[in-house]
Amino acid sequence: MRFLLEGYLRGTLPDYQMSAFLMACYFRGMSDEETETFTRLMLHSGQIVDLSDVPGIKVDKHSTGGVGDKVSLILAPIVASHGVPVPMISGRGLGHTGGTLDKLESIPGFRTSLSVAEYKRILRETGAVLMGQTAEIAPADRKLYALRDVTATVECIPLIAGSILSKKIAEGIDALVLDVKTGRGAFMSSYEDSVNLAKTLVDLGTRFGKNTRGFVTDMEQPLGVAVGNWLEVVEAVECLRGARGDGDASADLMEVTHTLAGAMLEAGGKAGSLDEGIRLSRQAVADGSAYRKFLHIVETQGGNTRAIENLELSPTPRHALSIKSPVDGFVAGIDALEVGLVSIQLGAGRQKLDDVLDLKAGIVLRVKVGTQVQAGDLLAELFTDRDDVVASARQRLQNAFLIRKEPPVRRPLLHCYVDQEGIHPRWQ
Amino acid sequence: MRFLLEGYLRGTLPDYQMSAFLMACYFRGMSDEETETFTRLMLHSGQIVDLSDVPGIKVDKHSTGGVGDKVSLILAPIVASHGVPVPMISGRGLGHTGGTLDKLESIPGFRTSLSVAEYKRILRETGAVLMGQTAEIAPADRKLYALRDVTATVECIPLIAGSILSKKIAEGIDALVLDVKTGRGAFMSSYEDSVNLAKTLVDLGTRFGKNTRGFVTDMEQPLGVAVGNWLEVVEAVECLRGARGDGDASADLMEVTHTLAGAMLEAGGKAGSLDEGIRLSRQAVADGSAYRKFLHIVETQGGNTRAIENLELSPTPRHALSIKSPVDGFVAGIDALEVGLVSIQLGAGRQKLDDVLDLKAGIVLRVKVGTQVQAGDLLAELFTDRDDVVASARQRLQNAFLIRKEPPVRRPLLHCYVDQEGIHPRWQ
Repeated sequence: MRFLLEGYLRGTLPDYQMSAFLMACYFRGMSDEETETFTRLMLHSGQIVDLSDVPGIKVDKHSTGGVGDKVSLILAPIVASHGVPVPMISGRGLGHTGGTLDKLESIPGFRTSLSVAEYKRILRETGAVLMGQTAEIAPADRKLYALRDVTATVECIPLIAGSILSKKIAEGIDALVLDVKTGRGAFMSSYEDSVNLAKTLVDLGTRFGKNTRGFVTDMEQPLGVAVGNWLEVVEAVECLRGARGDGDASADLMEVTHTLAGAMLEAGGKAGSLDEGIRLSRQAVADGSAYRKFLHIVETQGGNTRAIENLELSPTPRHALSIKSPVDGFVAGIDALEVGLVSIQLGAGRQKLDDVLDLKAGIVLRVKVGTQVQAGDLLAELFTDRDDVVASARQRLQNAFLIRKEPPVRRPLLHCYVDQEGIHPRWQ
Repeated sequence: MRFLLEGYLRGTLPDYQMSAFLMACYFRGMSDEETETFTRLMLHSGQIVDLSDVPGIKVDKHSTGGVGDKVSLILAPIVASHGVPVPMISGRGLGHTGGTLDKLESIPGFRTSLSVAEYKRILRETGAVLMGQTAEIAPADRKLYALRDVTATVECIPLIAGSILSKKIAEGIDALVLDVKTGRGAFMSSYEDSVNLAKTLVDLGTRFGKNTRGFVTDMEQPLGVAVGNWLEVVEAVECLRGARGDGDASADLMEVTHTLAGAMLEAGGKAGSLDEGIRLSRQAVADGSAYRKFLHIVETQGGNTRAIENLELSPTPRHALSIKSPVDGFVAGIDALEVGLVSIQLGAGRQKLDDVLDLKAGIVLRVKVGTQVQAGDLLAELFTDRDDVVASARQRLQNAFLIRKEPPVRRPLLHCYVDQEGIHPRWQ
């Protein structure tokens, strides 16, 4: 493994041998020891940030990626507001899923390219830092990921686990909470694969001495209402202010957020149990401390807080279109994968690596699965500057909604969680 | 599949994607339809020789490669002497196994590089032609094989089958007899894999409208007595003359030869059954017609028949060493793989593609598995010009012999054969 990875990074081992190895992993998997060795080599291919001079238990959250998943934007200030440092290195949008980095950059002025020195200074100053991956962090992962992408070897649990954990451990964290998505809008759509990935990640984190817990959460419909970078910031801000997220269409977003934040607060030593952590998380929203922390983070990283404080001044995309229900009934499904793909079409995501985003573009849902509707009721709105995609995007989004006569069977939002003791079934 | 193979041959599909595909095949196999498509694309990547203007049913034999396997040299003249045309395109030595081409080239003057026009002319003139692969025959196979070699994807039944059959069908044959080796000295050492390969080859040949039969024969000990290019020609010539091969240490070689030749004569319409074919094969040796045909082939392809007629004038290698039995007992095993590897060390085979062979070098066995020996009896002789390998080769060859107190249980030589009706168990 060392021969392979070091040779590959140095360029003495050719792409065609590495891709044969990756495909062998895809079909044969890796043992726990092999996965650990693989991850360790990826980790040590670059710099490991030393955060030992930042006081407190440093806890991060990682999501395997979903549609409308703006949890990080809400959860980082909640957890930091309770004094648990959150060093968070995020990625860009990938495939049909959005990336935290793109969302942050829709805030005017927000800087995500930081040096390691700035990263540590900001973390000490505000208790949270949100930045992009640097070239120094796990360079082997970067090179391997590009090869996996063009050889159909992305969906391989040990390779995914090694890629995630090598980057997260390199950040300098002490503990990690994982949000492994499952369902149509997730990279691993089958429940069994998602649970296996969560298990592998938790086992692997534990082997590296990190307190790791993995939650398997639902990604069959988009999370919350907004899909698209600035639209998701708006939803996150409204949730942080307490104006949304309780009994409305953003309730699922906040349920996931409070659960993950609760687990982080427990891991950070501020809560004695997950339930207490969840209570503390809700409290940070209710008393305004999470929102204040968010403004502080935005300000410290160069973002314009006036844009956040005055959401009504947001720039307006050229096209704003509505999707309406053609019949009476219940919303039985909102295809998260299709909504993600339509949002890319509108300009919110990349089809190619160098595509320029339209940060204002996206979709806002007006209903969720289970909502009762009448013919003509608003289902969603589309926002874009692109004239040429309007008709097709509208049609595709319309088809992403499934309306049935009978109310649907409710799918759980929080499926299960995995810790060192094993898999715990869904608790709601 | 077309996109992959055509793109790869044109250079628009990179090595790293093809190697990922090869590794996927290695672990997942191919369906019968996929194997057929793959083979057809390889076949049509180059020229397909049209032999329709050569009268008769053209029959070839292919062996998956063994140690001491000089069957082609004896079988081609036998079959041709009965008027069945044998168009045979052979390869060079590969790994621990020898190649028919190298053996032929140890005959002074013998030309194996022929144009397609010469190939057809000689086949019409002598009834058999033995040549090397040209750049025009299945170029995709050539390029793919080089990549398989460096990505650990050689041992994959559909890839092997496609590689063999695309080349054989491109020769212009009507029928094909296959010798799939099994045992330590074979590429596929497990019996099950060998039978599966034979089945795949027969199914595939049949799909291409070729009368195909596959024999699974033993390669646990070397075939016959000689291992090394000129040494094997000498053994083949002595067998063709009838001076060897009956009740002596070359008996196994001639049993395999007559069986395969018998199947070719049956496929060529000269025998009504395999048994009758075998009788005709024996007859061609007994009446001298096979030997005369051999001399004719050698002469037509530019070889010096005096070297064949006067084997006693053969050049002598610098070193001729003996291996003797250290104890009384029975020869219980002669490790074919190890004998093959020692012969490479002596100069008879290639470690790298551009190694120059010492055509005189090699090993002659004086015993076979089952022979009773006394301490001091000759087991084998080594011949080489290389001073530096003598001591190590001698020791390795000594260790390749297993001498036991009890006579060994005899391993069958002809395990089974496969035709369109299925697998037929060993018949002796």
